[in-house]
Amino acid sequence: MDSDFQRRITFILEIDRLKTILRQTLITDASRQETTAEHSWHLGVMAFLLADHALGPIDVLRTVKMCLVHDIVEIDAGDTFAYDAVGYQDKEAREQRAADRIFGLLPESQAAEIRALWDEFEAAQTPESRFANALDRLQPLLNNWKTAGGTWRRHTVSQAQVTARMQSVRTDLPEAWPLVEGIINEACAQGWLK
Amino acid sequence: MDSDFQRRITFILEIDRLKTILRQTLITDASRQETTAEHSWHLGVMAFLLADHALGPIDVLRTVKMCLVHDIVEIDAGDTFAYDAVGYQDKEAREQRAADRIFGLLPESQAAEIRALWDEFEAAQTPESRFANALDRLQPLLNNWKTAGGTWRRHTVSQAQVTARMQSVRTDLPEAWPLVEGIINEACAQGWLK
Repeated sequence: MDSDFQRRITFILEIDRLKTILRQTLITDASRQETTAEHSWHLGVMAFLLADHALGPIDVLRTVKMCLVHDIVEIDAGDTFAYDAVGYQDKEAREQRAADRIFGLLPESQAAEIRALWDEFEAAQTPESRFANALDRLQPLLNNWKTAGGTWRRHTVSQAQVTARMQSVRTDLPEAWPLVEGIINEACAQGWLK
Repeated sequence: MDSDFQRRITFILEIDRLKTILRQTLITDASRQETTAEHSWHLGVMAFLLADHALGPIDVLRTVKMCLVHDIVEIDAGDTFAYDAVGYQDKEAREQRAADRIFGLLPESQAAEIRALWDEFEAAQTPESRFANALDRLQPLLNNWKTAGGTWRRHTVSQAQVTARMQSVRTDLPEAWPLVEGIINEACAQGWLK
């Protein structure tokens, strides 16, 4: 077993810890919070199922990879709730340190590739990363809808906050926008959003 | 929102239930069993990280997709423990019915694509599906190793059973075989395998 292979196995074992990171989002049966590993899987499947709804042609493999690794930094940095203004103040610094350590477990060239995918996701400038970010907004909205407001009710989130957060869906996955609007309207009517 | 898009969203919501299916494998901190959604995410990442260790050139996107969908049938069919001879008797019939129902939620052409990926994984004849099956054997072995025998001890699994199950790693991911042999030897020395 060469040392590059050994380093990949070390990384593969390390990222198992993403199964211990809890997000605010509930799974659709409302029995518990979802883990970041589960969320990443869900996004990966959504990426190839919905790829032809991206604004232009995208590299589907790069998009799926990006979805699968986009939250690995949470192993060290934890999940920062989307509507937590205080947590967002040092989110970037915490996540950069996490990326250095965790991706650095891989052989050099592979570490650089995965780090570049994560940087691309965070910058959200390319068609692939804009699409992946839209999915990252849409998935928790769907789960909040199916759990009668889930996270929104627990944290008293407002319609304005959700509408602002969903703008990336409006821009980069416009086919889903009527659904998003319908869900937000229903959530207001039901009192799930203030 | 066209009806094809609506069907994809219905499927995306349905597969959230894969987060409720528990496997026998423990996560590496040994705190609980892993969910099938988490296992599928782990395999998807392993697929692109280890792709250059496949026996020949493989279509990485098709392999990653296959890993992400290979256990979706467990939503209806449940997880059948690898060493459960009785459960294996009707596993195929249960899983075929599940595939008909769940993949059938998708628009026709996409349902056919995902069904074909699942059939390919189950048949394990192509380079991509043979490699994906090897990953599906390797990942629980790694987790059993890190949890001091985990599932093996709980179910009194034997060295012969594990060695037989790992033959697909020997054949289709030979770079990992020395690691697998080392783990099996350690597990015997520690009394984790009978």
